[in-house]
Amino acid sequence: MDNWIDMNGPDGDVVLSSRIRLARNLSDFPFPIAMSDDDAAKVKAQVRDSILKSNTVLSRDFDYVDLAKTTPLDRMAFVERHLISPDLAREYKRGAVLLSRDEKVSIMINEEDHIRIQTIFPGLQLKEALDLADKIDDVMEENLKYAYDEEIGYLTSCPTNIGTGLRASVMLHLPALVMSDQIKNVLANLNKIGLAVRGIYGEGTEALGNIFQISNQITLGQGESEIIENMIGVTKSIISNERYVALEMYKNNKMRIEDMVYRSYGILKSARILSSEECMKHLSNVRLGKNLGIIKAEMPINGLLVYTQPANIQKIEGKELSPFERDVARAAYVRERIK
Amino acid sequence: MDNWIDMNGPDGDVVLSSRIRLARNLSDFPFPIAMSDDDAAKVKAQVRDSILKSNTVLSRDFDYVDLAKTTPLDRMAFVERHLISPDLAREYKRGAVLLSRDEKVSIMINEEDHIRIQTIFPGLQLKEALDLADKIDDVMEENLKYAYDEEIGYLTSCPTNIGTGLRASVMLHLPALVMSDQIKNVLANLNKIGLAVRGIYGEGTEALGNIFQISNQITLGQGESEIIENMIGVTKSIISNERYVALEMYKNNKMRIEDMVYRSYGILKSARILSSEECMKHLSNVRLGKNLGIIKAEMPINGLLVYTQPANIQKIEGKELSPFERDVARAAYVRERIK
Repeated sequence: MDNWIDMNGPDGDVVLSSRIRLARNLSDFPFPIAMSDDDAAKVKAQVRDSILKSNTVLSRDFDYVDLAKTTPLDRMAFVERHLISPDLAREYKRGAVLLSRDEKVSIMINEEDHIRIQTIFPGLQLKEALDLADKIDDVMEENLKYAYDEEIGYLTSCPTNIGTGLRASVMLHLPALVMSDQIKNVLANLNKIGLAVRGIYGEGTEALGNIFQISNQITLGQGESEIIENMIGVTKSIISNERYVALEMYKNNKMRIEDMVYRSYGILKSARILSSEECMKHLSNVRLGKNLGIIKAEMPINGLLVYTQPANIQKIEGKELSPFERDVARAAYVRERIK
Repeated sequence: MDNWIDMNGPDGDVVLSSRIRLARNLSDFPFPIAMSDDDAAKVKAQVRDSILKSNTVLSRDFDYVDLAKTTPLDRMAFVERHLISPDLAREYKRGAVLLSRDEKVSIMINEEDHIRIQTIFPGLQLKEALDLADKIDDVMEENLKYAYDEEIGYLTSCPTNIGTGLRASVMLHLPALVMSDQIKNVLANLNKIGLAVRGIYGEGTEALGNIFQISNQITLGQGESEIIENMIGVTKSIISNERYVALEMYKNNKMRIEDMVYRSYGILKSARILSSEECMKHLSNVRLGKNLGIIKAEMPINGLLVYTQPANIQKIEGKELSPFERDVARAAYVRERIK
């Protein structure tokens, strides 16, 4: 089964991915923060079986990974691929994750909540991601007793998730808005309407590869479809903004944009030592170049943004590497994938 | 007839070119600084005819260029190719130059002296350059009356050139000595033994492309062959120094050197805007890479170092260009020649 990341999605020029997360808890157990190791083990087993022993096609699509049995490198690689959260990687001893083979679905067990169903789709596909998450939710609910209140909805460990337990997010590549310095206004406006913005790897990584993750903050008092429609509307407006600014910028600085794009392409094809940050910078430039039609060649840029991260490059090499060795391996990997 | 610059010469990894200059004056005229316009015109005609109307093969190999009839761009391009001096370009109204088609020989007329015979050969070929200069000198002397004193030799406008009137120089590419910071010692030692060091385009251009021009300063009291043997000996010692340091540097920093070389190669193949300085930096790195066997592809680096200079790139384009247009034309020219 191919990984979702190498597929094209709608509005894929700007939207790297759409993610849905549903927070669920089991009514027979205290929230993870308050439960015993024994409870944690029972939750892991029940949730695992709800998928692997279900009478659906899902039972064959998923792998169960007990995080207590993984290496730090494994966990870091999962985090880089957004399959588990940094929190779960830290609290791995009682945690587990169910992963679909295409990595479109990851079900975290014993993170802040007992269950967090996550679905990721390429491009702008929030509805599709929600549909899949809902389907998985239904399958699991057949075998699990959720903590649910008729009036307020799903109960969660943190009050901000109560209600639908839904978080919707999109990962956007916004090089033109960054270069034209218009990103500040865009981000300020998003905050005003209650959406949170982070970098590709959380707070403080905003500049990395000009990639921004936008997510809803309010889960109570809004229905699922209301949340999704709102996110889609906002995202579409950012998409057209980015496209317009990119074209204007290119029209007014044709040679400078082409110079920037081709230099980045040349460096990615040439460098023998490549830091993660420099790599993302050049991948971002080349991605812009492809969107503007400057570069025609096909190349797996979205995948490279993830697989060149420190832990994943070590997983690809099959061993732990020093920072310098990683930079050498990253350069070799990029040359190989991009030529 | 192919231009000398695209040919390989002995020790061509380090020595870009060997140059000989003979200063001569006509006994029937005052030195250029003191002569009338009428005298200047007569000198131009006599010197021109001494070659073009000689009974030798030379008469067919040379073009006569009256500098009064050239554009500023023509003259600047000649300077960049080292065919005339900046001084003659400034005082062009009374000046002329005889150029051999392969540009190995240029005979400047009415520079500081009435005649300056210059020969340029690729690589370390000072003797060959001197042989050719002497041959041309002999042909000219058949038709001209030189200012010559039996005791002190050729009389010249400036006392530093009296005697043989000979200046010998080599153009050296010394990236490893620069990178290892050993160049300072080398240059200090050269000054101690009476040799002058400049950058490729004179004083103050030392850093450009890691290229250094070394020339003798004393022309009186030394024979031609003594001057040449001395220059060859010094040059050979610098060559082995550069080669040793380059290999050591590569051995100890293999990946970093390859990264530097391939990045420069990648940028030269990719950039759409390229300043003269940046271009020389990358050409220098690629040249080092070729010398170290990192890059195998053939490319005309020595020629590019000259033809990418501001005036020559405009001559190639066939029109005057703004600085930005030059940077664009330079990038296109380099991509075309290097691919």
